[in-house]
Amino acid sequence: MHTPFSGGVKISSILIVLNLKTYLEGTGENSVRIAQACKDVADDSGIDIAVAPQFCDIYRVASQVDIPVYSQHLDSVGAGSFTGHAFSRCIKDAGAVGTLINHSERRLTLAEIDASVQAAKKSGLATIVCTNNVPTSAAAAALSPDYVAVEPPELIGSGIPVSKADPAVVTGSVEAILKVNPAVKVLCGAGISKGEDLAAALELGSVGVLLASGIVKAASPKAALEDLVSKI
Amino acid sequence: MHTPFSGGVKISSILIVLNLKTYLEGTGENSVRIAQACKDVADDSGIDIAVAPQFCDIYRVASQVDIPVYSQHLDSVGAGSFTGHAFSRCIKDAGAVGTLINHSERRLTLAEIDASVQAAKKSGLATIVCTNNVPTSAAAAALSPDYVAVEPPELIGSGIPVSKADPAVVTGSVEAILKVNPAVKVLCGAGISKGEDLAAALELGSVGVLLASGIVKAASPKAALEDLVSKI
Amino acid sequence: MHTPFSGGVKISSILIVLNLKTYLEGTGENSVRIAQACKDVADDSGIDIAVAPQFCDIYRVASQVDIPVYSQHLDSVGAGSFTGHAFSRCIKDAGAVGTLINHSERRLTLAEIDASVQAAKKSGLATIVCTNNVPTSAAAAALSPDYVAVEPPELIGSGIPVSKADPAVVTGSVEAILKVNPAVKVLCGAGISKGEDLAAALELGSVGVLLASGIVKAASPKAALEDLVSKI
Amino acid sequence: MHTPFSGGVKISSILIVLNLKTYLEGTGENSVRIAQACKDVADDSGIDIAVAPQFCDIYRVASQVDIPVYSQHLDSVGAGSFTGHAFSRCIKDAGAVGTLINHSERRLTLAEIDASVQAAKKSGLATIVCTNNVPTSAAAAALSPDYVAVEPPELIGSGIPVSKADPAVVTGSVEAILKVNPAVKVLCGAGISKGEDLAAALELGSVGVLLASGIVKAASPKAALEDLVSKI
Repeated sequence: MHTPFSGGVKISSILIVLNLKTYLEGTGENSVRIAQACKDVADDSGIDIAVAPQFCDIYRVASQVDIPVYSQHLDSVGAGSFTGHAFSRCIKDAGAVGTLINHSERRLTLAEIDASVQAAKKSGLATIVCTNNVPTSAAAAALSPDYVAVEPPELIGSGIPVSKADPAVVTGSVEAILKVNPAVKVLCGAGISKGEDLAAALELGSVGVLLASGIVKAASPKAALEDLVSKI
Repeated sequence: MHTPFSGGVKISSILIVLNLKTYLEGTGENSVRIAQACKDVADDSGIDIAVAPQFCDIYRVASQVDIPVYSQHLDSVGAGSFTGHAFSRCIKDAGAVGTLINHSERRLTLAEIDASVQAAKKSGLATIVCTNNVPTSAAAAALSPDYVAVEPPELIGSGIPVSKADPAVVTGSVEAILKVNPAVKVLCGAGISKGEDLAAALELGSVGVLLASGIVKAASPKAALEDLVSKI
Repeated sequence: MHTPFSGGVKISSILIVLNLKTYLEGTGENSVRIAQACKDVADDSGIDIAVAPQFCDIYRVASQVDIPVYSQHLDSVGAGSFTGHAFSRCIKDAGAVGTLINHSERRLTLAEIDASVQAAKKSGLATIVCTNNVPTSAAAAALSPDYVAVEPPELIGSGIPVSKADPAVVTGSVEAILKVNPAVKVLCGAGISKGEDLAAALELGSVGVLLASGIVKAASPKAALEDLVSKI
Repeated sequence: MHTPFSGGVKISSILIVLNLKTYLEGTGENSVRIAQACKDVADDSGIDIAVAPQFCDIYRVASQVDIPVYSQHLDSVGAGSFTGHAFSRCIKDAGAVGTLINHSERRLTLAEIDASVQAAKKSGLATIVCTNNVPTSAAAAALSPDYVAVEPPELIGSGIPVSKADPAVVTGSVEAILKVNPAVKVLCGAGISKGEDLAAALELGSVGVLLASGIVKAASPKAALEDLVSKI
């Protein structure tokens, strides 16, 4: 669906995922505006930027903006009697290409994470499993998602980038994941908002970042995104 | 949004809510088709019929079919750092006019039910709190939702209507709710699919029904809905 | 099991429940020491004082100190395949005479609260359902526990007594519960630690208090308890 | 605490853990009787047998029978305001030497499993993390517990031993765990009750079994245990 215009090997392998959470600045029509800003900066920079709106906004974002859309969560349930659950087929039908799983604000049991990764794969959705430290990153890698996004919960929304506050959690996760399952790529989350944070995250061995408030709540999300990709 | 053409007092006060759960027959484009069948039968009969699709289908149903849309679930969270939650404002913005709360397949704590009812009201959404027996119906009424839908879990999806299998749970709930909060109306769920079930539910003091598989998985949902309203 | 020596109507109807949570000062052998302090003050004052130790300490407290012992939690499960659950029969066998249900640090779904109250009654355990505001107090009363303990979560452990910070939540709960189920008695929790707090709680219509850190973490729990009952 | 009389390398490395769940046959005084049967068979056979009673029974079993006692569950909470939780220090103080974590009847989030393993270790408790398939076994191994007990949930309580129904889940777990963390030993659960099941479990590379109903609900638990160890 989304192809970066730049064919550079390094740039094309970078992934930025913008989580809109339940911020008003990313709810309803606002989700479309932010997604458009992501697309503009992705087109200009050649770097993949995906957006993760709320469930109810997936369809409108995906049908109005040509950008990779991720769900913020997915339940492992199949078709059937599962009122109020986030079913992989429905998420895919709404236009998503992937999903976050086990975000620190929506934790799942180990068995559910495994089943969610399988359900997403079966529906053709890319998977990003969120973790909180090196051992859980290694554990998540054993479940073979596409990405593991390591985010020390105490840094989420703090404005202090994990790449500065705790670089060892990123390098440790990269190493541990490489040992358990080298096919799994690492994203770096928590406190990321500036170009130097993204550059540092890549230096530490991750292939990109998962971020939220630093961009969504910025005076100009587009300007913030332009700064984010400016150091690559 | 939806006005029944018939002004009859009795008919206009009846509410049928069709829960699409995660049935494939009610997922994606199928949710729009079933919603259209509901609208057709509502227009023909003058009885209010609402549809409760999955989160990701709310926007497309509400923007394509002129029918009251309910969410299957709502979290009590506000705007903020709540990844993967069903935020009242987003549900409302997507076009829903109400929400189920505490369905037996998505139970909430007592404090969450209370907070969810308040969050829904603040966002202008009608509220249907699901319960499983007479004491929990009375308890739910104390939280002042618009409706309490009593559904013995063992009868959900059974094809055996609660109005036959356990009429006392309906009459008992009606009585207990009247004592606790007479402004709260009662819906009757579990095993409902036929015209005689709806008629019996109304006889027992409820103002309508919450139903799912009996209609969604019928060979013709529209014919099943026509049968449902045929005894009024 | 426990009979206050004073036959005074007012005193004998007062109940103080001391929740030991997972405080080190109330864990293991310490739970026995605090229970003994409770018993001494209960004997001297003629006021009922119960203690709620952790699951693993119920047996040792109940077998060593002649005091009413409550569990901090109870699951609604029966006998069977329920690993890691708090089964009413086992709690009773260990020597408890009652249980807290739905404490703010261990919330349950509405259906579980109802089932837990029923399970506790069937096993002969007294029930105290914790709530957070007036509507949830009214709701809990509909489930017919012996007591409802209303505790605004933001005041728990604050040292600011609910009787001062928000007396309306107590009087409102007393009134609402009286309307829904007059057999249910009201306890008052959150921030309670001094004699004036207990006196104020009784003035507001409650029959006692549920408290924790103010006593458990006091330099001398016994002296703190003596102060607590000094204004009656 | 427990030393098998036989010094044989193979025998002394075998571990049998009997989970009493909430079976009436293993509740209250019955838990002491079953623990005594375990001790008798352990003494006669030289094979380590541990018992996992309910929380409230840990103290009485550990203080009356000289046998390794495991908790059925442990919460990762520390000392503090955690009403109704299973605190590692309290479990240890009651006499337990280890704990099950993440049993299929008491699942935890990935972050909680990690924190529970750490909390248990800090309190000196051995850890058995339960899993449901090969990927989750590999994931659990990354958290460095002492044991991983793999138990396909559909076989638990079935009477059909996993060693017969799905030997590949055992051999696959053994292999995957060896790769992720060779220090972690494997137990085999679900449907185990007879001597041939234990022998088969050891053949498949596990060092022992986690079992429940097949022994606890046997006419004579002691005779059932004697049969269990008879093929070693």
